[in-house]
Amino acid sequence: MSIRIDNVTVLGTGNLGSQIAYQIAYSGFEVMAYDINDQILKTAKKRFEELGARYEQEVEGASDGRARAALARIRCSSTLADAVRDADLVIESAPEILDVKRELYAKLGPLAPGRTIFATNSSTLLPSDLAEATGRPERFVALHFANDIWIYNIAEIMGHPRTDPAIYDTVVDFARRIGMEPIKIHKEKAGYVQNSLLVPFLEAAQALVVNGIADPETIDKTWRIATGAPKGPLQMLDIIGLTTAYHIAASGDEQARANARYLKEHYIDQGKLGRASGEGFYKYETVPAQSSTKPVTASA
Amino acid sequence: MSIRIDNVTVLGTGNLGSQIAYQIAYSGFEVMAYDINDQILKTAKKRFEELGARYEQEVEGASDGRARAALARIRCSSTLADAVRDADLVIESAPEILDVKRELYAKLGPLAPGRTIFATNSSTLLPSDLAEATGRPERFVALHFANDIWIYNIAEIMGHPRTDPAIYDTVVDFARRIGMEPIKIHKEKAGYVQNSLLVPFLEAAQALVVNGIADPETIDKTWRIATGAPKGPLQMLDIIGLTTAYHIAASGDEQARANARYLKEHYIDQGKLGRASGEGFYKYETVPAQSSTKPVTASA
Repeated sequence: MSIRIDNVTVLGTGNLGSQIAYQIAYSGFEVMAYDINDQILKTAKKRFEELGARYEQEVEGASDGRARAALARIRCSSTLADAVRDADLVIESAPEILDVKRELYAKLGPLAPGRTIFATNSSTLLPSDLAEATGRPERFVALHFANDIWIYNIAEIMGHPRTDPAIYDTVVDFARRIGMEPIKIHKEKAGYVQNSLLVPFLEAAQALVVNGIADPETIDKTWRIATGAPKGPLQMLDIIGLTTAYHIAASGDEQARANARYLKEHYIDQGKLGRASGEGFYKYETVPAQSSTKPVTASA
Repeated sequence: MSIRIDNVTVLGTGNLGSQIAYQIAYSGFEVMAYDINDQILKTAKKRFEELGARYEQEVEGASDGRARAALARIRCSSTLADAVRDADLVIESAPEILDVKRELYAKLGPLAPGRTIFATNSSTLLPSDLAEATGRPERFVALHFANDIWIYNIAEIMGHPRTDPAIYDTVVDFARRIGMEPIKIHKEKAGYVQNSLLVPFLEAAQALVVNGIADPETIDKTWRIATGAPKGPLQMLDIIGLTTAYHIAASGDEQARANARYLKEHYIDQGKLGRASGEGFYKYETVPAQSSTKPVTASA
Protein backbone atom coordinates (compact mmCIF):
# COMPACT_ATOMS: atom_id res chain seq x y z
CA MET A 1 0.00 0.00 0.00
CA SER A 2 1.30 3.36 -0.82
CA ILE A 3 1.87 6.14 1.70
CA ARG A 4 -0.34 9.20 1.61
CA ILE A 5 1.15 12.28 -0.02
CA ASP A 6 -0.65 15.60 0.36
CA ASN A 7 1.97 18.27 0.94
CA VAL A 8 4.96 18.53 -1.31
CA THR A 9 8.00 20.75 -0.95
CA VAL A 10 10.30 21.47 -3.87
CA LEU A 11 13.80 22.61 -2.97
CA GLY A 12 15.27 24.80 -5.68
CA THR A 13 13.33 27.05 -8.05
CA GLY A 14 15.57 26.98 -11.12
CA ASN A 15 14.17 26.23 -14.54
CA LEU A 16 13.21 22.63 -13.85
CA GLY A 17 12.51 23.08 -10.13
CA SER A 18 9.89 25.70 -10.99
CA GLN A 19 8.31 23.40 -13.56
CA ILE A 20 8.16 20.55 -11.04
CA ALA A 21 6.53 22.77 -8.40
CA TYR A 22 4.05 24.18 -10.88
CA GLN A 23 3.10 20.80 -12.37
CA ILE A 24 2.47 19.37 -8.90
CA ALA A 25 0.30 22.35 -7.94
CA TYR A 26 -1.48 22.05 -11.28
CA SER A 27 -2.27 18.45 -10.34
CA GLY A 28 -4.08 19.62 -7.18
CA PHE A 29 -1.41 19.35 -4.50
CA GLU A 30 -0.36 22.01 -2.02
CA VAL A 31 3.20 22.94 -2.90
CA MET A 32 5.88 24.74 -0.97
CA ALA A 33 8.70 26.15 -3.10
CA TYR A 34 11.94 26.75 -1.26
CA ASP A 35 14.99 28.67 -2.34
CA ILE A 36 17.89 30.25 -0.48
CA ASN A 37 16.76 33.88 -0.47
CA ASP A 38 13.81 36.13 -1.20
CA GLN A 39 15.41 37.66 -4.27
CA ILE A 40 15.55 34.25 -5.93
CA LEU A 41 12.00 33.53 -4.85
CA LYS A 42 10.88 36.74 -6.53
CA THR A 43 12.28 35.36 -9.79
CA ALA A 44 10.59 32.04 -9.03
CA LYS A 45 7.20 33.76 -8.71
CA LYS A 46 7.72 35.31 -12.13
CA ARG A 47 8.56 31.84 -13.47
CA PHE A 48 5.36 30.39 -12.02
CA GLU A 49 3.33 33.17 -13.66
CA GLU A 50 5.03 32.47 -16.99
CA LEU A 51 4.40 28.75 -16.62
CA GLY A 52 0.73 29.51 -15.93
CA ALA A 53 0.59 31.42 -19.21
CA ARG A 54 2.31 28.61 -21.12
CA TYR A 55 -0.03 25.98 -19.66
CA GLU A 56 -2.99 28.13 -20.71
CA GLN A 57 -1.66 28.10 -24.27
CA GLU A 58 -0.30 24.58 -24.47
CA VAL A 59 -2.20 22.34 -22.04
CA GLU A 60 -5.76 21.35 -22.83
CA GLY A 61 -8.21 22.55 -20.20
CA ALA A 62 -5.67 24.80 -18.47
CA SER A 63 -7.31 28.02 -19.60
CA ASP A 64 -10.55 27.23 -17.74
CA GLY A 65 -9.09 28.80 -14.60
CA ARG A 66 -7.09 25.69 -13.75
CA ALA A 67 -3.71 27.22 -14.59
CA ARG A 68 -4.47 30.21 -12.33
CA ALA A 69 -5.78 27.99 -9.53
CA ALA A 70 -2.45 26.18 -9.54
CA LEU A 71 -0.63 29.42 -8.77
CA ALA A 72 -2.74 29.84 -5.64
CA ARG A 73 -1.56 26.44 -4.40
CA ILE A 74 2.14 27.38 -4.45
CA ARG A 75 3.63 29.05 -1.39
CA CYS A 76 7.24 30.18 -1.23
CA SER A 77 9.74 30.23 1.59
CA SER A 78 13.42 30.92 2.08
CA THR A 79 13.42 29.30 5.53
CA LEU A 80 14.17 25.62 5.19
CA ALA A 81 12.55 24.66 8.51
CA ASP A 82 9.27 26.34 7.52
CA ALA A 83 9.44 24.96 4.02
CA VAL A 84 9.59 21.31 5.08
CA ARG A 85 7.62 21.36 8.36
CA ASP A 86 4.50 19.70 6.88
CA ALA A 87 6.04 17.96 3.91
CA ASP A 88 5.03 14.41 3.04
CA LEU A 89 7.45 14.52 0.14
CA VAL A 90 10.46 16.75 -0.49
CA ILE A 91 11.76 16.93 -4.06
CA GLU A 92 15.25 18.35 -4.23
CA SER A 93 16.20 20.21 -7.39
CA ALA A 94 19.31 21.99 -6.11
CA PRO A 95 22.41 22.72 -8.25
CA GLU A 96 24.20 19.63 -9.59
CA ILE A 97 27.14 19.90 -7.21
CA LEU A 98 27.66 16.97 -4.89
CA ASP A 99 28.74 19.02 -1.85
CA VAL A 100 25.91 21.52 -2.24
CA LYS A 101 23.38 18.72 -2.30
CA ARG A 102 24.98 16.81 0.58
CA GLU A 103 25.06 19.94 2.73
CA LEU A 104 21.43 20.61 1.93
CA TYR A 105 20.41 17.07 2.91
CA ALA A 106 22.45 17.30 6.12
CA LYS A 107 20.39 20.36 7.12
CA LEU A 108 17.15 18.94 5.80
CA GLY A 109 17.32 15.61 7.63
CA PRO A 110 16.76 16.95 11.17
CA LEU A 111 14.20 19.57 10.05
CA ALA A 112 11.78 17.35 8.14
CA PRO A 113 9.27 15.09 9.93
CA GLY A 114 10.28 11.44 10.22
CA ARG A 115 7.59 10.40 7.73
CA THR A 116 8.86 12.70 4.96
CA ILE A 117 10.09 11.03 1.79
CA PHE A 118 13.07 12.63 0.06
CA ALA A 119 13.54 12.53 -3.70
CA THR A 120 16.35 14.01 -5.75
CA ASN A 121 15.87 15.32 -9.27
CA SER A 122 19.61 15.02 -9.92
CA SER A 123 20.51 14.13 -13.53
CA THR A 124 24.14 13.35 -12.96
CA LEU A 125 24.44 11.87 -9.46
CA LEU A 126 23.27 8.49 -8.27
CA PRO A 127 21.00 8.11 -5.24
CA SER A 128 23.85 6.20 -3.54
CA ASP A 129 25.97 9.35 -3.69
CA LEU A 130 23.48 11.15 -1.46
CA ALA A 131 21.71 8.42 0.51
CA GLU A 132 23.84 8.64 3.67
CA ALA A 133 23.67 12.42 3.78
CA THR A 134 19.87 12.27 3.93
CA GLY A 135 19.97 10.46 7.29
CA ARG A 136 17.06 8.34 6.02
CA PRO A 137 18.40 6.28 3.12
CA GLU A 138 15.41 3.92 3.14
CA ARG A 139 13.06 6.86 2.45
CA PHE A 140 15.19 8.26 -0.36
CA VAL A 141 14.95 7.81 -4.14
CA ALA A 142 15.73 9.68 -7.33
CA LEU A 143 12.72 11.16 -9.12
CA HIS A 144 13.99 12.64 -12.35
CA PHE A 145 11.95 14.91 -14.60
CA ALA A 146 12.50 16.16 -18.13
CA ASN A 147 12.52 19.80 -19.20
CA ASP A 148 9.13 21.08 -20.45
CA ILE A 149 7.53 18.72 -17.98
CA TRP A 150 3.99 19.31 -19.32
CA ILE A 151 5.01 17.99 -22.75
CA TYR A 152 7.73 15.44 -21.93
CA ASN A 153 5.86 13.92 -19.03
CA ILE A 154 8.19 11.20 -17.93
CA ALA A 155 9.38 10.73 -14.36
CA GLU A 156 12.26 8.33 -13.99
CA ILE A 157 12.27 6.68 -10.58
CA MET A 158 15.49 5.07 -9.39
CA GLY A 159 16.20 3.75 -5.93
CA HIS A 160 19.46 2.67 -4.36
CA PRO A 161 20.07 -0.69 -2.68
CA ARG A 162 18.62 0.47 0.66
CA THR A 163 15.49 2.20 -0.64
CA ASP A 164 12.36 0.74 0.98
CA PRO A 165 10.24 -0.83 -1.80
CA ALA A 166 7.09 0.72 -0.27
CA ILE A 167 8.70 4.16 -0.58
CA TYR A 168 9.65 3.41 -4.17
CA ASP A 169 6.08 2.37 -4.97
CA THR A 170 4.70 5.47 -3.25
CA VAL A 171 6.83 7.71 -5.43
CA VAL A 172 5.80 5.77 -8.57
CA ASP A 173 2.18 6.27 -7.58
CA PHE A 174 2.76 9.95 -6.88
CA ALA A 175 4.39 10.42 -10.29
CA ARG A 176 1.27 9.00 -11.90
CA ARG A 177 -0.97 11.32 -9.85
CA ILE A 178 0.88 14.38 -11.12
CA GLY A 179 0.36 13.34 -14.73
CA MET A 180 3.73 11.74 -15.33
CA GLU A 181 4.41 8.43 -17.01
CA PRO A 182 6.50 6.64 -14.35
CA ILE A 183 9.71 5.13 -15.73
CA LYS A 184 10.69 2.39 -13.29
CA ILE A 185 14.43 1.83 -13.17
CA HIS A 186 15.46 -1.40 -11.44
CA LYS A 187 19.10 -0.61 -10.70
CA GLU A 188 21.18 2.52 -10.31
CA LYS A 189 22.40 3.72 -13.69
CA ALA A 190 24.05 7.03 -14.55
CA GLY A 191 21.86 8.80 -17.10
CA TYR A 192 18.77 6.79 -16.10
CA VAL A 193 17.02 5.46 -19.22
CA GLN A 194 16.49 8.69 -21.11
CA ASN A 195 20.03 9.99 -21.12
CA SER A 196 21.49 6.50 -21.49
CA LEU A 197 19.74 6.44 -24.86
CA LEU A 198 20.12 10.10 -25.79
CA VAL A 199 23.79 10.68 -25.01
CA PRO A 200 25.37 8.07 -27.34
CA PHE A 201 22.82 8.91 -30.04
CA LEU A 202 23.49 12.65 -29.89
CA GLU A 203 27.23 12.07 -29.73
CA ALA A 204 27.08 9.93 -32.86
CA ALA A 205 25.20 12.72 -34.65
CA GLN A 206 27.70 15.35 -33.50
CA ALA A 207 30.59 13.15 -34.66
CA LEU A 208 29.09 13.04 -38.16
CA VAL A 209 29.11 16.85 -38.25
CA VAL A 210 32.50 17.23 -36.57
CA ASN A 211 34.14 14.73 -38.92
CA GLY A 212 32.60 16.35 -42.00
CA ILE A 213 30.60 13.27 -42.99
CA ALA A 214 27.30 15.04 -43.64
CA ASP A 215 25.42 18.31 -43.05
CA PRO A 216 23.14 18.78 -40.04
CA GLU A 217 20.06 18.95 -42.25
CA THR A 218 21.01 15.72 -44.04
CA ILE A 219 21.65 13.90 -40.77
CA ASP A 220 18.34 15.02 -39.30
CA LYS A 221 16.43 14.15 -42.47
CA THR A 222 17.93 10.65 -42.46
CA TRP A 223 16.77 10.05 -38.90
CA ARG A 224 13.30 11.44 -39.50
CA ILE A 225 12.72 9.31 -42.58
CA ALA A 226 14.37 6.17 -41.19
CA THR A 227 12.49 6.20 -37.88
CA GLY A 228 9.43 8.40 -38.42
CA ALA A 229 10.58 10.66 -35.58
CA PRO A 230 9.44 14.31 -35.71
CA LYS A 231 12.93 15.67 -35.04
CA GLY A 232 16.47 14.67 -35.89
CA PRO A 233 19.35 14.64 -33.40
CA LEU A 234 20.70 18.09 -34.25
CA GLN A 235 17.26 19.64 -33.93
CA MET A 236 17.08 17.94 -30.53
CA LEU A 237 20.49 19.36 -29.57
CA ASP A 238 19.33 22.86 -30.48
CA ILE A 239 16.43 22.42 -28.05
CA ILE A 240 18.56 20.89 -25.29
CA GLY A 241 21.04 23.73 -25.73
CA LEU A 242 24.60 23.50 -26.97
CA THR A 243 26.10 24.53 -23.63
CA THR A 244 24.51 21.52 -21.97
CA ALA A 245 25.66 19.33 -24.86
CA TYR A 246 29.15 20.77 -24.47
CA HIS A 247 29.36 19.91 -20.77
CA ILE A 248 28.18 16.35 -21.35
CA ALA A 249 30.57 15.83 -24.28
CA ALA A 250 33.55 17.36 -22.48
CA SER A 251 33.57 14.51 -19.96
CA GLY A 252 33.21 11.76 -22.57
CA ASP A 253 35.59 9.68 -24.66
CA GLU A 254 38.01 10.96 -27.30
CA GLN A 255 35.37 11.52 -29.99
CA ALA A 256 33.06 13.17 -27.46
CA ARG A 257 35.83 15.56 -26.41
CA ALA A 258 36.46 16.40 -30.06
CA ASN A 259 32.74 17.10 -30.36
CA ALA A 260 32.94 19.39 -27.31
CA ARG A 261 35.82 21.39 -28.81
CA TYR A 262 33.94 21.74 -32.08
CA LEU A 263 30.75 22.89 -30.37
CA LYS A 264 32.70 25.48 -28.42
CA GLU A 265 34.66 26.84 -31.37
CA HIS A 266 31.96 26.80 -34.05
CA TYR A 267 28.88 27.57 -32.00
CA ILE A 268 29.17 28.52 -28.33
CA ASP A 269 32.02 31.03 -28.75
CA GLN A 270 29.92 32.72 -31.44
CA GLY A 271 26.87 32.97 -29.24
CA LYS A 272 25.08 30.18 -31.08
CA LEU A 273 23.68 28.28 -28.12
CA GLY A 274 20.74 26.57 -29.75
CA ARG A 275 17.09 27.43 -30.19
CA ALA A 276 16.87 29.67 -27.13
CA SER A 277 19.56 32.00 -28.52
CA GLY A 278 18.00 32.10 -32.00
CA GLU A 279 20.75 30.02 -33.60
CA GLY A 280 22.51 26.71 -33.16
CA PHE A 281 22.81 24.04 -35.84
CA TYR A 282 19.84 25.88 -37.37
CA LYS A 283 18.73 29.51 -37.44
CA TYR A 284 15.41 30.26 -35.78
CA GLU A 285 12.93 33.00 -36.29
CA THR A 286 11.10 33.75 -33.09
CA VAL A 287 7.40 33.76 -33.71
CA PRO A 288 6.04 36.95 -32.09
CA ALA A 289 3.75 36.68 -29.08
CA GLN A 290 4.58 33.01 -28.65
CA SER A 291 7.30 31.26 -26.80
CA SER A 292 7.83 28.66 -29.47
CA THR A 293 10.19 29.19 -32.36
CA LYS A 294 10.46 27.65 -35.77
CA PRO A 295 13.54 26.81 -37.79
CA VAL A 296 14.02 28.83 -40.95
CA THR A 297 17.36 27.82 -42.42
CA ALA A 298 20.34 25.76 -41.44
CA SER A 299 23.20 27.86 -40.18
CA ALA A 300 25.89 25.31 -40.96
CA MET B 1 25.25 18.50 -65.82
CA SER B 2 24.08 15.08 -65.01
CA ILE B 3 24.50 12.08 -67.24
CA ARG B 4 21.44 10.48 -68.82
CA ILE B 5 20.18 7.31 -67.13
CA ASP B 6 17.54 5.25 -68.87
CA ASN B 7 18.42 1.60 -68.44
CA VAL B 8 19.25 0.25 -65.03
CA THR B 9 20.54 -3.18 -64.10
CA VAL B 10 20.30 -4.51 -60.57
CA LEU B 11 22.72 -7.30 -59.69
CA GLY B 12 21.31 -9.53 -56.97
CA THR B 13 17.63 -10.23 -56.33
CA GLY B 14 17.63 -10.83 -52.58
CA ASN B 15 15.22 -9.03 -50.30
CA LEU B 16 16.61 -5.55 -50.82
CA GLY B 17 17.84 -6.11 -54.39
CA SER B 18 14.29 -7.00 -55.42
CA GLN B 19 12.92 -3.91 -53.74
CA ILE B 20 15.47 -1.71 -55.50
CA ALA B 21 14.65 -3.21 -58.90
CA TYR B 22 10.92 -2.90 -58.31
CA GLN B 23 11.08 0.70 -57.03
CA ILE B 24 13.13 1.75 -60.06
CA ALA B 25 10.68 0.08 -62.43
CA TYR B 26 7.80 1.66 -60.51
CA SER B 27 9.44 5.04 -61.16
CA GLY B 28 9.25 4.45 -64.93
CA PHE B 29 12.68 3.03 -65.76
CA GLU B 30 13.45 -0.11 -67.72
CA VAL B 31 15.08 -2.50 -65.28
CA MET B 32 17.12 -5.62 -65.79
CA ALA B 33 17.35 -7.90 -62.74
CA TYR B 34 20.33 -10.22 -62.72
CA ASP B 35 21.02 -13.20 -60.52
CA ILE B 36 23.29 -16.21 -60.82
CA ASN B 37 20.77 -18.83 -61.98
CA ASP B 38 17.24 -19.26 -63.23
CA GLN B 39 16.04 -20.94 -60.06
CA ILE B 40 16.88 -17.81 -58.06
CA LEU B 41 15.28 -15.64 -60.71
CA LYS B 42 12.09 -17.66 -60.35
CA THR B 43 12.03 -16.68 -56.68
CA ALA B 44 12.79 -13.11 -57.70
CA LYS B 45 9.75 -13.01 -59.97
CA LYS B 46 7.60 -14.14 -57.06
CA ARG B 47 9.15 -11.34 -54.98
CA PHE B 48 8.31 -8.76 -57.62
CA GLU B 49 4.70 -9.97 -57.71
CA GLU B 50 4.50 -9.72 -53.92
CA LEU B 51 6.00 -6.25 -54.01
CA GLY B 52 3.41 -5.23 -56.58
CA ALA B 53 0.68 -6.39 -54.18
CA ARG B 54 2.25 -4.50 -51.26
CA TYR B 55 2.57 -1.31 -53.30
CA GLU B 56 -1.08 -1.61 -54.27
CA GLN B 57 -1.98 -1.74 -50.58
CA GLU B 58 0.55 0.69 -49.18
CA VAL B 59 1.51 3.21 -51.85
CA GLU B 60 -0.95 5.88 -52.89
CA GLY B 61 -1.88 5.65 -56.55
CA ALA B 62 -0.24 2.25 -57.03
CA SER B 63 -3.52 0.39 -57.42
CA ASP B 64 -4.48 2.40 -60.56
CA GLY B 65 -2.53 -0.10 -62.65
CA ARG B 66 0.81 1.51 -61.87
CA ALA B 67 2.03 -1.32 -59.67
CA ARG B 68 1.26 -3.83 -62.40
CA ALA B 69 2.84 -1.69 -65.12
CA ALA B 70 6.07 -1.70 -63.09
CA LEU B 71 6.21 -5.49 -63.32
CA ALA B 72 6.16 -5.27 -67.11
CA ARG B 73 9.25 -3.06 -67.03
CA ILE B 74 11.40 -5.63 -65.22
CA ARG B 75 13.28 -8.22 -67.26
CA CYS B 76 15.38 -10.94 -65.69
CA SER B 77 18.61 -12.58 -66.80
CA SER B 78 21.14 -15.00 -65.40
CA THR B 79 23.71 -14.08 -68.04
CA LEU B 80 25.81 -11.19 -66.81
CA ALA B 81 26.85 -10.04 -70.32
CA ASP B 82 23.22 -9.79 -71.43
CA ALA B 83 22.16 -8.19 -68.19
CA VAL B 84 24.55 -5.25 -68.44
CA ARG B 85 24.84 -4.79 -72.20
CA ASP B 86 22.65 -1.67 -72.34
CA ALA B 87 23.02 -0.47 -68.77
CA ASP B 88 23.52 3.21 -68.03
CA LEU B 89 23.67 2.34 -64.34
CA VAL B 90 24.41 -0.95 -62.60
CA ILE B 91 23.39 -1.24 -58.95
CA GLU B 92 25.10 -4.12 -57.22
CA SER B 93 23.25 -5.76 -54.36
CA ALA B 94 25.28 -8.97 -54.08
CA PRO B 95 26.02 -10.79 -50.79
CA GLU B 96 28.06 -8.79 -48.26
CA ILE B 97 31.24 -10.76 -48.80
CA LEU B 98 34.23 -8.78 -50.03
CA ASP B 99 35.60 -11.50 -52.33
CA VAL B 100 32.19 -12.24 -53.85
CA LYS B 101 31.71 -8.59 -54.69
CA ARG B 102 35.27 -8.12 -55.99
CA GLU B 103 34.95 -11.15 -58.23
CA LEU B 104 31.63 -9.88 -59.55
CA TYR B 105 33.10 -6.45 -60.37
CA ALA B 106 36.11 -8.06 -62.05
CA LYS B 107 33.72 -9.89 -64.40
CA LEU B 108 31.41 -6.91 -64.77
CA GLY B 109 34.06 -4.35 -65.73
CA PRO B 110 34.88 -5.73 -69.20
CA LEU B 111 31.24 -6.62 -69.96
CA ALA B 112 29.58 -3.28 -69.29
CA PRO B 113 29.80 -0.35 -71.73
CA GLY B 114 32.39 2.27 -70.89
CA ARG B 115 29.69 4.80 -70.05
CA THR B 116 28.05 2.58 -67.41
CA ILE B 117 28.06 3.87 -63.83
CA PHE B 118 28.51 1.29 -61.09
CA ALA B 119 26.94 1.68 -57.65
CA THR B 120 27.15 -0.68 -54.71
CA ASN B 121 24.36 -1.10 -52.18
CA SER B 122 26.80 -2.56 -49.64
CA SER B 123 25.97 -1.72 -46.01
CA THR B 124 29.21 -2.85 -44.48
CA LEU B 125 31.95 -2.20 -47.05
CA LEU B 126 33.34 1.14 -48.14
CA PRO B 127 33.51 2.13 -51.83
CA SER B 128 37.32 2.19 -51.48
CA ASP B 129 37.25 -1.53 -50.74
CA LEU B 130 35.79 -2.21 -54.18
CA ALA B 131 36.87 0.75 -56.35
CA GLU B 132 39.91 -0.88 -57.93
CA ALA B 133 38.05 -4.11 -58.69
CA THR B 134 35.52 -2.17 -60.77
CA GLY B 135 38.20 -1.13 -63.27
CA ARG B 136 36.50 2.30 -63.40
CA PRO B 137 36.89 3.83 -59.95
CA GLU B 138 35.89 7.31 -61.13
CA ARG B 139 32.47 5.98 -62.21
CA PHE B 140 31.86 4.11 -58.96
CA VAL B 141 29.93 5.16 -55.82
CA ALA B 142 27.92 3.60 -53.03
CA LEU B 143 24.17 3.99 -53.29
CA HIS B 144 22.67 2.54 -50.16
CA PHE B 145 18.98 1.86 -49.66
CA ALA B 146 16.93 0.98 -46.59
CA ASN B 147 14.68 -2.02 -46.25
CA ASP B 148 11.01 -1.35 -47.13
CA ILE B 149 12.27 1.13 -49.68
CA TRP B 150 8.79 2.49 -50.47
CA ILE B 151 8.35 3.63 -46.86
CA TYR B 152 11.90 4.43 -45.75
CA ASN B 153 12.81 6.23 -48.95
CA ILE B 154 16.33 7.32 -48.24
CA ALA B 155 19.25 6.66 -50.56
CA GLU B 156 22.64 7.31 -49.00
CA ILE B 157 25.20 8.28 -51.62
CA MET B 158 28.86 7.97 -50.72
CA GLY B 159 31.79 8.33 -53.06
CA HIS B 160 35.44 7.46 -52.52
CA PRO B 161 38.34 9.86 -53.11
CA ARG B 162 38.52 9.09 -56.85
CA THR B 163 34.79 9.26 -57.64
CA ASP B 164 34.11 11.82 -60.40
CA PRO B 165 31.90 14.58 -58.93
CA ALA B 166 29.73 14.53 -62.08
CA ILE B 167 29.07 10.83 -61.51
CA TYR B 168 28.24 11.51 -57.86
CA ASP B 169 25.77 14.22 -58.89
CA THR B 170 24.23 11.96 -61.52
CA VAL B 171 23.54 9.30 -58.93
CA VAL B 172 22.09 11.90 -56.52
CA ASP B 173 19.80 13.07 -59.30
CA PHE B 174 18.84 9.50 -60.16
CA ALA B 175 17.99 8.78 -56.51
CA ARG B 176 15.61 11.73 -56.55
CA ARG B 177 14.00 10.52 -59.79
CA ILE B 178 13.19 7.13 -58.24
CA GLY B 179 11.43 8.78 -55.31
CA MET B 180 14.27 8.64 -52.82
CA GLU B 181 15.45 11.40 -50.54
CA PRO B 182 19.16 11.58 -51.43
CA ILE B 183 21.43 11.57 -48.37
CA LYS B 184 24.68 13.13 -49.51
CA ILE B 185 27.68 11.80 -47.60
CA HIS B 186 30.82 13.88 -48.03
CA LYS B 187 33.42 11.34 -46.89
CA GLU B 188 33.62 7.59 -46.60
CA LYS B 189 32.16 6.43 -43.32
CA ALA B 190 31.31 2.89 -42.24
CA GLY B 191 27.59 2.77 -41.47
CA TYR B 192 26.86 5.84 -43.62
CA VAL B 193 24.63 8.27 -41.70
CA GLN B 194 21.74 5.98 -40.85
CA ASN B 195 23.64 3.15 -39.19
CA SER B 196 26.12 5.55 -37.61
CA LEU B 197 23.16 6.92 -35.67
CA LEU B 198 21.22 3.69 -35.22
CA VAL B 199 23.94 1.32 -34.06
CA PRO B 200 25.07 3.18 -30.89
CA PHE B 201 21.49 4.05 -30.07
CA LEU B 202 20.26 0.47 -30.38
CA GLU B 203 23.28 -0.84 -28.48
CA ALA B 204 22.55 1.55 -25.61
CA ALA B 205 18.97 0.28 -25.49
CA GLN B 206 20.10 -3.35 -25.54
CA ALA B 207 22.58 -2.63 -22.74
CA LEU B 208 19.75 -1.33 -20.55
CA VAL B 209 17.91 -4.63 -21.00
CA VAL B 210 21.01 -6.82 -20.71
CA ASN B 211 22.13 -5.07 -17.51
CA GLY B 212 18.68 -5.29 -15.96
CA ILE B 213 18.20 -1.52 -15.72
CA ALA B 214 14.68 -1.39 -17.14
CA ASP B 215 12.10 -3.42 -19.09
CA PRO B 216 11.84 -3.20 -22.88
CA GLU B 217 8.42 -1.57 -22.64
CA THR B 218 9.69 1.04 -20.20
CA ILE B 219 12.71 1.84 -22.35
CA ASP B 220 10.58 2.22 -25.47
CA LYS B 221 8.00 4.35 -23.67
CA THR B 222 10.72 6.68 -22.41
CA TRP B 223 12.03 7.22 -25.91
CA ARG B 224 8.61 7.73 -27.42
CA ILE B 225 7.60 10.33 -24.84
CA ALA B 226 10.98 12.07 -24.69
CA THR B 227 11.35 12.45 -28.45
CA GLY B 228 7.86 12.06 -29.91
CA ALA B 229 9.07 9.12 -32.02
CA PRO B 230 6.48 6.53 -33.04
CA LYS B 231 8.66 3.59 -31.98
CA GLY B 232 11.19 2.90 -29.25
CA PRO B 233 14.55 1.21 -29.87
CA LEU B 234 13.43 -2.30 -28.93
CA GLN B 235 10.43 -2.06 -31.20
CA MET B 236 12.87 -1.00 -33.93
CA LEU B 237 15.11 -3.98 -33.16
CA ASP B 238 12.17 -6.35 -33.50
CA ILE B 239 11.58 -4.95 -36.99
CA ILE B 240 15.25 -5.03 -38.00
CA GLY B 241 15.41 -8.60 -36.72
CA LEU B 242 17.43 -9.91 -33.80
CA THR B 243 19.75 -12.00 -35.98
CA THR B 244 20.91 -8.88 -37.78
CA ALA B 245 21.26 -7.10 -34.43
CA TYR B 246 23.26 -10.05 -33.15
CA HIS B 247 25.73 -9.96 -36.04
CA ILE B 248 26.29 -6.22 -35.64
CA ALA B 249 26.69 -6.47 -31.86
CA ALA B 250 29.03 -9.48 -32.05
CA SER B 251 31.71 -7.39 -33.76
CA GLY B 252 31.41 -4.44 -31.36
CA ASP B 253 32.99 -3.47 -28.04
CA GLU B 254 32.73 -5.34 -24.76
CA GLN B 255 29.18 -4.19 -23.94
CA ALA B 256 28.07 -4.88 -27.52
CA ARG B 257 29.45 -8.42 -27.29
CA ALA B 258 27.60 -8.93 -24.00
CA ASN B 259 24.48 -7.73 -25.80
CA ALA B 260 25.12 -10.25 -28.58
CA ARG B 261 25.44 -13.13 -26.10
CA TYR B 262 22.23 -12.06 -24.38
CA LEU B 263 20.33 -11.81 -27.67
CA LYS B 264 21.49 -15.27 -28.65
CA GLU B 265 20.70 -16.94 -25.34
CA HIS B 266 17.41 -15.22 -24.48
CA TYR B 267 15.93 -14.73 -27.92
CA ILE B 268 17.59 -16.23 -30.99
CA ASP B 269 18.21 -19.70 -29.51
CA GLN B 270 14.51 -19.77 -28.58
CA GLY B 271 13.37 -18.88 -32.07
CA LYS B 272 12.47 -15.34 -31.05
CA LEU B 273 13.92 -13.46 -34.00
CA GLY B 274 11.78 -10.34 -33.91
CA ARG B 275 8.56 -9.30 -35.56
CA ALA B 276 8.94 -11.58 -38.57
CA SER B 277 9.01 -14.68 -36.34
CA GLY B 278 6.05 -13.52 -34.23
CA GLU B 279 8.17 -12.78 -31.16
CA GLY B 280 11.21 -10.79 -30.15
CA PHE B 281 11.29 -8.23 -27.35
CA TYR B 282 7.51 -8.21 -27.88
CA LYS B 283 4.97 -10.81 -28.92
CA TYR B 284 3.11 -10.12 -32.16
CA GLU B 285 -0.20 -11.25 -33.45
CA THR B 286 -0.18 -11.49 -37.21
CA VAL B 287 -3.07 -9.58 -38.64
CA PRO B 288 -4.70 -11.91 -41.19
CA ALA B 289 -4.66 -10.97 -44.89
CA GLN B 290 -2.02 -8.32 -44.30
CA SER B 291 1.71 -8.49 -44.16
CA SER B 292 1.95 -6.06 -41.26
CA THR B 293 1.81 -7.20 -37.67
CA LYS B 294 0.93 -5.47 -34.45
CA PRO B 295 2.45 -5.94 -31.01
CA VAL B 296 0.16 -7.45 -28.41
CA THR B 297 2.24 -7.94 -25.26
CA ALA B 298 5.84 -7.72 -24.22
CA SER B 299 7.52 -11.06 -24.10
CA ALA B 300 10.27 -10.02 -21.69
